Formats: sequence, structure tokens, C-alpha cells
Amino acid sequence: MVRQPVAEDRFSFGLWTVGWTGTDPFGGPSRPALDPWEYSDKLAELGAWGITFHDNDVFPFDADDDTKKRIVGRLKDAADKAGLVIEMVTTNTFSHPVFKDGGLTANDRGVRRFGLRKVLKAVDLAAEVGASTFVMWGGREGAEYDGSKDVYAAFERYKEGLDTVAGYIKSQGHQLRIGLEPKPNEPRGDIFLPTVGHALGLIAQLEHGDIVGLNPETGHEQMANLNYTHALGQALWSGKLFHIDLNGQRGLKYDQDLVFGHGDLISAFFTVDLLENGFPGYPDAPRYTGPRHFDYKPSRTEFLDGVWESARACMSTYLMLADKAKAFRADARVQDAMKYSGVYDLAQPTLAEGETVAQLLASDDGFDPEKAAERDYGFVKLQQLAIEHLLG
Amino acid sequence: MVRQPVAEDRFSFGLWTVGWTGTDPFGGPSRPALDPWEYSDKLAELGAWGITFHDNDVFPFDADDDTKKRIVGRLKDAADKAGLVIEMVTTNTFSHPVFKDGGLTANDRGVRRFGLRKVLKAVDLAAEVGASTFVMWGGREGAEYDGSKDVYAAFERYKEGLDTVAGYIKSQGHQLRIGLEPKPNEPRGDIFLPTVGHALGLIAQLEHGDIVGLNPETGHEQMANLNYTHALGQALWSGKLFHIDLNGQRGLKYDQDLVFGHGDLISAFFTVDLLENGFPGYPDAPRYTGPRHFDYKPSRTEFLDGVWESARACMSTYLMLADKAKAFRADARVQDAMKYSGVYDLAQPTLAEGETVAQLLASDDGFDPEKAAERDYGFVKLQQLAIEHLLG
Amino acid sequence: MVRQPVAEDRFSFGLWTVGWTGTDPFGGPSRPALDPWEYSDKLAELGAWGITFHDNDVFPFDADDDTKKRIVGRLKDAADKAGLVIEMVTTNTFSHPVFKDGGLTANDRGVRRFGLRKVLKAVDLAAEVGASTFVMWGGREGAEYDGSKDVYAAFERYKEGLDTVAGYIKSQGHQLRIGLEPKPNEPRGDIFLPTVGHALGLIAQLEHGDIVGLNPETGHEQMANLNYTHALGQALWSGKLFHIDLNGQRGLKYDQDLVFGHGDLISAFFTVDLLENGFPGYPDAPRYTGPRHFDYKPSRTEFLDGVWESARACMSTYLMLADKAKAFRADARVQDAMKYSGVYDLAQPTLAEGETVAQLLASDDGFDPEKAAERDYGFVKLQQLAIEHLLG
Amino acid sequence: MVRQPVAEDRFSFGLWTVGWTGTDPFGGPSRPALDPWEYSDKLAELGAWGITFHDNDVFPFDADDDTKKRIVGRLKDAADKAGLVIEMVTTNTFSHPVFKDGGLTANDRGVRRFGLRKVLKAVDLAAEVGASTFVMWGGREGAEYDGSKDVYAAFERYKEGLDTVAGYIKSQGHQLRIGLEPKPNEPRGDIFLPTVGHALGLIAQLEHGDIVGLNPETGHEQMANLNYTHALGQALWSGKLFHIDLNGQRGLKYDQDLVFGHGDLISAFFTVDLLENGFPGYPDAPRYTGPRHFDYKPSRTEFLDGVWESARACMSTYLMLADKAKAFRADARVQDAMKYSGVYDLAQPTLAEGETVAQLLASDDGFDPEKAAERDYGFVKLQQLAIEHLLG
Repeated sequence: MVRQPVAEDRFSFGLWTVGWTGTDPFGGPSRPALDPWEYSDKLAELGAWGITFHDNDVFPFDADDDTKKRIVGRLKDAADKAGLVIEMVTTNTFSHPVFKDGGLTANDRGVRRFGLRKVLKAVDLAAEVGASTFVMWGGREGAEYDGSKDVYAAFERYKEGLDTVAGYIKSQGHQLRIGLEPKPNEPRGDIFLPTVGHALGLIAQLEHGDIVGLNPETGHEQMANLNYTHALGQALWSGKLFHIDLNGQRGLKYDQDLVFGHGDLISAFFTVDLLENGFPGYPDAPRYTGPRHFDYKPSRTEFLDGVWESARACMSTYLMLADKAKAFRADARVQDAMKYSGVYDLAQPTLAEGETVAQLLASDDGFDPEKAAERDYGFVKLQQLAIEHLLG
Repeated sequence: MVRQPVAEDRFSFGLWTVGWTGTDPFGGPSRPALDPWEYSDKLAELGAWGITFHDNDVFPFDADDDTKKRIVGRLKDAADKAGLVIEMVTTNTFSHPVFKDGGLTANDRGVRRFGLRKVLKAVDLAAEVGASTFVMWGGREGAEYDGSKDVYAAFERYKEGLDTVAGYIKSQGHQLRIGLEPKPNEPRGDIFLPTVGHALGLIAQLEHGDIVGLNPETGHEQMANLNYTHALGQALWSGKLFHIDLNGQRGLKYDQDLVFGHGDLISAFFTVDLLENGFPGYPDAPRYTGPRHFDYKPSRTEFLDGVWESARACMSTYLMLADKAKAFRADARVQDAMKYSGVYDLAQPTLAEGETVAQLLASDDGFDPEKAAERDYGFVKLQQLAIEHLLG
Repeated sequence: MVRQPVAEDRFSFGLWTVGWTGTDPFGGPSRPALDPWEYSDKLAELGAWGITFHDNDVFPFDADDDTKKRIVGRLKDAADKAGLVIEMVTTNTFSHPVFKDGGLTANDRGVRRFGLRKVLKAVDLAAEVGASTFVMWGGREGAEYDGSKDVYAAFERYKEGLDTVAGYIKSQGHQLRIGLEPKPNEPRGDIFLPTVGHALGLIAQLEHGDIVGLNPETGHEQMANLNYTHALGQALWSGKLFHIDLNGQRGLKYDQDLVFGHGDLISAFFTVDLLENGFPGYPDAPRYTGPRHFDYKPSRTEFLDGVWESARACMSTYLMLADKAKAFRADARVQDAMKYSGVYDLAQPTLAEGETVAQLLASDDGFDPEKAAERDYGFVKLQQLAIEHLLG
Repeated sequence: MVRQPVAEDRFSFGLWTVGWTGTDPFGGPSRPALDPWEYSDKLAELGAWGITFHDNDVFPFDADDDTKKRIVGRLKDAADKAGLVIEMVTTNTFSHPVFKDGGLTANDRGVRRFGLRKVLKAVDLAAEVGASTFVMWGGREGAEYDGSKDVYAAFERYKEGLDTVAGYIKSQGHQLRIGLEPKPNEPRGDIFLPTVGHALGLIAQLEHGDIVGLNPETGHEQMANLNYTHALGQALWSGKLFHIDLNGQRGLKYDQDLVFGHGDLISAFFTVDLLENGFPGYPDAPRYTGPRHFDYKPSRTEFLDGVWESARACMSTYLMLADKAKAFRADARVQDAMKYSGVYDLAQPTLAEGETVAQLLASDDGFDPEKAAERDYGFVKLQQLAIEHLLG
């Protein structure tokens, strides 16, 4: 049996995950909505360490300030009592139809101003409840039709919005970093910042990019037909892996938000291996030290029992994979196979220390391409060792 | 009838495009291989302005220096005689099995050194024949299995390789810029730099990133389920659209390299609209001024007649779309529809000039979200106008 | 300008299309709901010939018999007055959470019985309003997890359900045929009957399969990475193309339900070409003679004006493509190109009349494979002629 | 450690799998080609029970009869000596450029006649070496362009070809059944018979369909974004699962042909569960009793050692999954969860024995949809139990 999760595991959940009532494009809710503190109490009981939320997961879109304060206060009390950290807060700039063309990049300037104010208020809320990360998912920033958006303008406005928010965070002295969450599509036909790469490209152009990084989601990268673990790797290499959203996706279709591990299991194994054990050839490379945050949806076929089972399953699968990843790395056969495959050799610079290009060009290293082409890299064997570890 | 292409259209073709003999994973060549100058002569006759090539499109992998010089010289002469510009050169670091695990990021350091030397020699070749762009497609830089690559190391080596090449270009005084060509997969299961975004992210970390930009290919972005025109837009916004590869792809499958326009025709229209007419709201935004370069493959069912028909079709479709894009922008109904949709409004900053965040937060602009939510954006009507222009 | 649609065009729309209020997985309605007769009146005004609906597009899930009768009566009156045919009716067995695991194949037998009764009542409704087609889309018949369904049992129950419904239609003397609507996923992870092929396979096993055929939807086949026009072709060849759902989809993502032609435009052209002009080599082959039915969604960014623009756009694009398809077939250059490509030759049997296999084996026809391999099929040129016609 | 495979496991391999030398669209061979008997000897040594081949895996396309006889004889001797069964034979109608537009559905009648003769000869070869299955993969039967094929004619010719071959098998008294192998694309843009469903639809129209069934390949169904285990289920339900091709695929890209289990591992588990344990609710339903046949490719990065490692890995993974599937079914917690989820209940007919539709309509079973909607199906918990078994 898998052990119970504990605080040190740093598992956190969005309130909107267990709180999803099952409305999808073809049907209404299949479960009742509970109060925010009911979700957080139950998550604490299951072993979670933290919670996260959108502003409107907690209070209604049109709540007045007193109502917001009252509800947030009650949630904060409940979280404190349950020993839960509110580690991340985000803004909902996608549900209300005012945002149907986006928040920061809507063609309508009034909407953009309203959206930006909503985000800024959520920043204060995040700081107030002690969050360390402020996620921004621009799910409605995009288009169905190429003619409907001036893409240059869209990036100008995205930059303006992000720099305004990041500048505000700094000006207020909030201990917050922004995590951008890429997604290729849904609910828009094409979303700006479709992948981790595009977000890295945008961040490089920001004035306050130092506190802007990534919150990559498993299924979102996979919806762009891409390798999630590679995305985490590039984000870490760029010093930008600020937060993560773990879940499951089964191929190129609607955003499934399955339990972590219920999608591509081999990929999930290597994701956990990277998160827990780092890069094999670079012991000193940046490591991800943030929460293990789940952004998933309990299937619509489940009622409340199934909701809690699914939250439990996310943590349980992670723990099982973490154990296996430790054993994988510790296995001498695996070490040998990694050496055989040259996995560690890639950490060695291609040029020798101090070698000039002229020297490189002059050298031929006695290298025989025909002979080198016969190298057996042993990648399949190494992968099979991973499968053997996975399958116990 | 469509007019003949002329030099001013700046159409160019890879020699490997018309030169593809039809070998695919399930079959051998269906056409004979011609000499490089036969392809270039014929392309000139069809109206092309330029040609491009990989080193080994022209001379064999194991050619000695004399052979190289002789063949390249003959090709250069033929090109000069035909009035063709050799606008881009690139290196083949993917066909020979020595590169089966990549060139710059192979686990085998000997291979990396050999690969880097090959790239550096091709840089000199590019300069020698007068090319202005040096494309680097790392088609074998990637993996099938997450365990077989230390991703941090891979990015370190990619950076080392690119900085070495870019530094060498500078040191030699070559008038060359590097265009990275992203691709998500094929021939590797997952290729590093899978999209334009990931390449922008890497470039931001380079020492010599100023001369490193993008060579985005239509079908490659589409193989990552992404919008090619958006990719061009972000690349232009980032000042990094150095070169383009136009072709066609029909969805998520093997790399089809169809004739430009024979894939997603609506997307092709907006690609040409962006290339020819720029961003509607930013007349002064960066424009793409490079060649209209085709990287496609004449279908394997075609013999030599079909090869030339397909090259002709690439240029002809581009010209038809360019005419249509001009007419689209000039149509008063389209202008009205773009205004109605707020396309131009996105160029206006969200904050007023000099406005502080405090002022923004204090303002409410009399904004009523319920009312704003009822705005009819008119995106479908605008799209339908594009369709009407497309369909003549 | 495109001409106005007329009754002879036989355009029909689902009430749920223009009636979609914009609720999606990430946001609530962006438009008000009108009464069913408001939609039908407006569709008639735009030139539609027919309408279609799910039972619960018209009356609530829990309506009593009097309410149903009253509402349906009023809609029928409105349709009659507007000169609209109610050509198809279908059942909603997917929105209410009771159907969260399906209607005919739910693991819960009580649900299956309830679902079957609901379908049977909708059959009577269809007959009563004079529909000729009864569509069955089993959107919730499927699973997210392979272990949750006995697939053999699922097909047994699907067959039982369909045969019960088809048998009931016959027993009541209704002039109705069933059109199965395949879809690969959404809202379930994997839907049974994911494609036209799978539905043909199931129909072949039915007792009352003679009145069960297909209602293929453009985007649904494309969500399975397949060619819609090929699907129509196989359905026609099998004598099973009973109805169609035309719309647009841009690749492998959530079900977009765009305006017809706003997805893959070249594919839409060939779809219309097949519907309007039939198979080139088989003038006597079965033709599709049913309604040109649109199953699309006006984008959520549009308010009511945009709803009507989008309905207009569906018909307008179809008419433009139909004109172009006629011109394409009539063009002597196209005829020549089709002959050159051997398009007509495929209609000729491979064996001569009366030829035995022994005779075939004994013949060698003087066939030289090396020489035949050099045939230039001219497919690219033929495609380019289609593009030229498309682009006017 | 995993046990060695034995003959009773009935593992078989295509000679073209271990024999693939690594040529792909971007590179030449990375390994030498061995003689057919070298592959079969080694496969026997690894524990395989059977081998399969295309005619031209064994002898050249243009071999004369003597050469064929000599080579096939030597292979048969080697197989016999090694105790290997030649369980399936197939024809290569895709590699030689004469087949660039297909074999049975090429527009060129001469090619069709030549192709049909080649298939018929391979049928005799199959019978001669004692195969029980004759696979037909029409990889080149398809199109890149909708205008290039009359789809009705293509299905007429496909039917003619299949009926000719099946009729010939019967006339010769061969103990052979045909297994059609669907694939959505590659090497053609769209292949006819893209999925198991489409093949079932075609078979239903054949004259000799009784001896024509399916040979579904894991990755091929997944390239159509579909569930392989569901495909096997429908094929079994239709009495048509004649043979299988097991391998691995990681999403929507080129045909990867990875080791079985190295793609979607959870799907592989349920595939093995179905093959080994059958349908849970139908102990008497048809079972697959044929070979466990692998159609995969050792990655191009591997040399000969890696080839054998990868063949070993296919069998080893299957055996591990089979053990786990047995344990999964035998676990009382799983049994309880399956009951809770209603997995067995789906086997119960929806109508009671002898119940009429009138009786069904009259009954309401006291069914309350609101209450039934609150059922917790427990699918996520059941899936998590599968994950726990998978992860040991």
C-alpha cells in the first residue's frame, strides 16, 4: 500500500479541481458545489499541504468588498486551522462573458482596463493570504480567426499587462512571483503563449521578467503534441520553473485534466524523476523546489466519493512514482546503462577548456564517422530498465 | 491566369525540394537524381530568384576538398549564369548514421566535435557563395526516450554549439545570420526546439543571440498543433524572423512538405497577408523582407514533369494569395469590419500615457461588465469576408 | 456577391446551432436564449429550407406531456407558417447528469431503460412533426478508462438499443431512417463509434440495419485525424449516407463547430464537389440527396448579430463552393488533367469481363514495372487546378 | 526478473522488424542487413515461437522463380530447425515505385493487375510455408489530394481485389484467412481503410468476407487518435480479430513502431488484459487465440545489440503485463470496484426477457433521474487500482 501523504510532500490542489461540478460543453453539473472551506478541510484530511484558488473560486464575480473580505477571511481561517498553506492565487479572466475576447489582449480597451484591474486586485489578495506564486493563465487571450487579431499588438498588450502586474508586485513589496501558464487551445481556437517555449520567448522581452516565470501544465504541453518533461527541462535551464500543474491527458483532444498518471504514465514517471532527482549529469543544476500542485478534474461520472478518491489518487500516484524514480537512479544496472548510453557524457563541453575554434577545426580527433556510426547507444535497453522499474 | 514569377518576387527553393527523389519510410526513389545545376537551371527558368542547399545536397558526405570546390564552383557558375542568388546554405547533420543521436547534442562527444566542425565548414561555404542566411535545423537533436538525454546538458551543448558557430561567423566577418528551424518530431520522437517559441527561449540565453533568429516552417509549427501565422507574428515582434520555409501540411501526421497552399489554405492566406501587408495596427512594426523560400516535396507519385509543376504551383499559389491579400486589405467592407471588430484598437495601450497603476486602479471608466459582455465582436463576419476574397 | 439561398438548396440548421448561448468548459453563456420559434423564423428569413432539433432544444428535460405538446405545437405552427420543413429530430441523451455514463450503454441498467424510453418517445415526436431522419449521437456512450467498460457488452447493448429503436420505427409504420453520428471523443475520453467506419461495422451486425445509416459530421471525422470526404465516399458506397452535418474544424483539438468552410477549406471544396457532382467515374453511383444540414456553433465572441451572420456564412460558403465545383468539373483543362491522372480509369475493373484468376496469373500484359514506375501521375497539377478554381 | 519467453507464449515477429536497417525519411541505414535466417535463428534463441514476412523481406522484388524457391527453402529449413512457425505471410505492394499510387487501387490498371498477381503469388507462398494468416496492408492505397481519386471506384477495386484473393484462397483449398491492416496515413496522406472500423465496414460488403478479418496494429489506431483496446473489442465482437500487430506509439506523429509498452503503457496494460483475460462480463465471448505478433522497429540509434535488446523487450513487457493483468482480475478489491462501477451489469440486456417495447414504454421502473444522476460510478478508483497493479 502507498503511504499517506504528509506536509513535507508539499502537495497542493486548486480549489477548482475538487470543486469542479462537472459542467462540460455537452452537459450541466453532475455534483453539488460545496463551500470553499469544505474543500480545503477535506484536502487537509487527505494529506494535502496547500491549496490554491482563482478569486472567483472563492467569491462571486460581482461580490462587493465586504463580501470578499468575509469569505476570504473565513477560508483563510479554515486553511490556518487545517494547517494548509495558500501557496498560489490566480485570477479568473475567462469565465464571465466580458472576457470572451480575452482580458489583457481583448480588442476592447475597456475590457483590457477592467481585466487589468481585476488582476491587480487579485495580486493584493494573493499577497494578503500569503501566497508566493501568482499564476496567470490567459485562456481567452487568443483567436479563432487570424484576421481578428493584430498579433504584434497582442504581444504589445500582453507585455504591457505583464509588466504592469510585475511592476506593481515590486512596487508593493509583495513576495510574489508570476507563473505564466501556457496552453495551445481551448477555450480559444489558438491561444497566445501556446507552449512553455512561447512564454519563455515573451518573458525575454519583459522589463520585469526577473519575477516572471512558468507554471507548465502536463496536459497543456501534451495538447501541443509536445514532451512535458522536456518543457520542464528547458524551463529549469532558463531559471524559470516557478510552479507546476500536474495532471493527465490522453492525446490530442479536449483538455482532459485527468488524475496525474492516468494519462501518459511513462512520461509521468520521467517528470517525477526530474522533479525528485534532478538532471543526472548536473548535480548543481537548478532544481524545482516548489509545491507539487495538481490541476485536474475528477471525472464527471463520479459523485463526491469519487472526487476524494481522485484527489487521493493524484498524490498516491506521485508518491509511487517518486519511490520508483529513486530506485531507478540507485540501480547499478541503470547506472551502467546510462553510462553505456553516454547520458553523463553530454554534460562535458564539446570544446576542451580553452580550445579555440581554430584548434577545433584543425583537430580531427582521429574520428572515423563510419566507425562512430556503428555505436550502439543502448537507449532501448535503458528505457526497458525504466519500464521494469515502473512495473515493479 | 496567374502571372509568371519574377526576380522581384524573391522566390527561392531548396535544391533538396525539387531534388527529392521520393524515398520515404516505406519505399525507395521514384525519380532519378539530377545534378545540382540541372535543378537550379530549371528553377531559374520557372521564375525563381534564388536557391538554397545543404552541403550534401551538392557534394557527397565524404567528398575531399578538391571535389567540393569543383562541384560548388560549377553550381555557383550555373547560378550566376542563370541569374540566381544563393541566398541560404545549411548543413546536413542528420542523414549520415554518425548523426543518429544528433550533431550538436549527441551523447557522444566525438560526434559533437565532428558535427560542429561540419557546421563550421558549411558556414565558410555559405559565406563563400554569398549567402546571407545560415539555417540550422537540428532534426536529430532530440530523443525517443526521456531517460536517454540529460535535458539540461542538451541545452548547454546546444547553446555551446550555437554560440561557437555565431561567434565564428562574427570572427570571420561573414555577413551571415543564423536561422534556427524548429520542428516538434520526425525523425526523432521529440526534437529539442520543437516550436518557434522554444527557439526564442533558447536564443534569449545565447551570448551571440543578436545574429541568431528563426526560420519557421509552415508544416513544422502545424505538426505541433499550432498556428503558423501566430508564430511568424511572435517572431517578428521579437525581431527574429530571419527566414521562412513555406509549404503545406494536412494535420497531425508525418511531415508532408506539400506545395504551399495545398495544406491549410485559409492559414496560408493569412500568412501571405502578414508577409505582404504587415500588421494592420502597426504600420511601423518590423516587416519580413527576406526571401519567399519554399521547403516542400513534390509528391512521390509525380515524375519529373510533376516536379516542375509542383515548383510552379508553390509560386503561383503565393502570387494568387498575395493579390487576394492586397484586395482584402483595400476593401472598404473589410476595413469597416476590422474597425467593428476592434482590430485596430488593440494597438492602443491599455494604460493612458503617463497613467499610473494607482490611477488605473482608482478609475472605473464607468465600465459595466454586463453591458460590455454583450458586444458583438463580428469576428465571424470578418472571417467570412476573408473567405469571400479567397474564393474570388 | 453570393446569391440568397432558396428552398431548393435544402439548407437546414439545428436549432441548437444558432441557439447555442456560448457556455463552454471555461465560461458561462455570452448570449441570451431565445424561444425555438424565434430561431426558426429567423432561419427562414435567411433562406433556410429546414430545421432540426433535439427534444430538449424545444422543451425542458422534465416537461410534462401537456407542456411538450404545447411547445412542439407552437414550433410546428411557426415552421409551417415560415415554410420550413422539420427534416430531422434527435434525442438529447447527454446533457442531464443521469446520462453521465451514457444512455444506451450506461453501466446502470435503470439509466439504459430510461434512456431507451426517452429515445423511443423522441422517435414518435420525429414522426409527428414529419421528420424523415432520426439522428442518434451517442456522445456519452464511451469511457475515460478502459477498465470501466466491458466493450463486448457495450456493443451488445448498443445493438440492442438500435435494433429496438429501428424495430419500433418499423412497427409504427413511421417513415423514418436512423442516422448514426460518429465522434471520436468529447465529452467522453473515447466514444464508441468514433468514426464513420466503426458505425458501418456496427450497422452490419444489426437486425434492422436496413433503416440505419450515417450522419457524418465534418469536424468529428477530422477530430479522428481522418478525411471527411473519404468518409462520405465510403458511406455512399455502402448505401448508408442518410444525412450530413456540415461544419468547420481546425485540426486536433476540442470540437470547434466552426462555420462550414472556416476549417479546412480545400477539404470543404471536395466535400461539396462530391455532394453536388457525385463520383466522376460512376455517373450511376448512389448520390446524396438529403438536406445540406449545418451543425455548427456561432463563436462565443459574437452576440446575436454575429449569430445570424454565421448562419448566413454557412450557406453562402456552400453556395460559392458549389459554383466552383461545377466550374471545376466543366473545365476542359481539369477534364484533361483527370484523364492524365487516370481518375476515370479506376472505374474499370482490374480483371477483364469473364477473366479467371488463372488467366490473370498467366497473363503478364507485357507489363514492365520499371517503366510503369516512371509514370507521372500529375496529381499535383490536378490539385493546383482545384486551387486555381477555388481562388477564382 | 522476467521469465524467458517460451513457445506456449506464441510470440512472433516480422522479419522486417529486427531487419529494419534504420532508413528513415531523413537518413540512410544505420545497421547492416543480415540474411533472413540470421534474424530467425536469433529470434528463436530469444524465445520467439514464430516469424512472419513480406515476400520481399526474403527475396528481391525482381527475383526469378528459382531464386525465390532457393531462398524461401533455406529460410523454411532454418525455421524448422529452430522450431519456429511461419505463422503469417504478407505481400510488399508499397516499396517499389511501381506501387507509388497503390497496388489494388492504383489509378493505373496495369499496376493493379500486376499488384494483384503479386498478391496471389504471395498467397501461394503463404500456403506453401504453412502460414495460417495472410495479412494485407494497403499502405499505398490512398491519396494526398481528394481530386486524384474516385473514392467509389477505389472501394469497388478494393472489393474486387479482396474478393479475388479470398476467392482464390478458397479455390486452392488453402487454410488461410486474410487479415486487413488499417492505417490512417503514412506513406499516403490519407489511406483508405484508415481504422479498424472502416475495414469492418468494407468486409461487410465482400462476397468472401467470411475469411477476411482484421490485423489491427497498436500504433496505427493511435495515429487516428483512437483507443486500440476498444478497436480490438469491436473486432472481437464482430468475430473478426484474426491477427494482431503489437507495438508502441507516442501520440500523433509519424509511425514510430516502438517496442510494445514503450508508447501508452496504460493502454498496453488493458490490451494485454483483454487478450489474456477476455471480457469480464462475457466469459463465453470470442477470445483472441492467435499469435502475439510484434510489428515494431528497433530505434535507429541502436546497433545490432540494441536490435536484440528491443526484441527481448517486446516479449518481456508483454509477459510482465500479462502477470499484472491476471493479478488485477484476481484481486478482490478490483472485483468489488468493478461491481461498484457496474462493469458486469452492462452484460445484462436492457429489456427483460420477452419484454416488448410497449411494456418498456409503459414501465417507469420507479426510476428517478435526479437520484440516479447522483450515482458515484467509481471509475477513477477502479482506474487507480489498475495503476497500483501496474506499478506493482
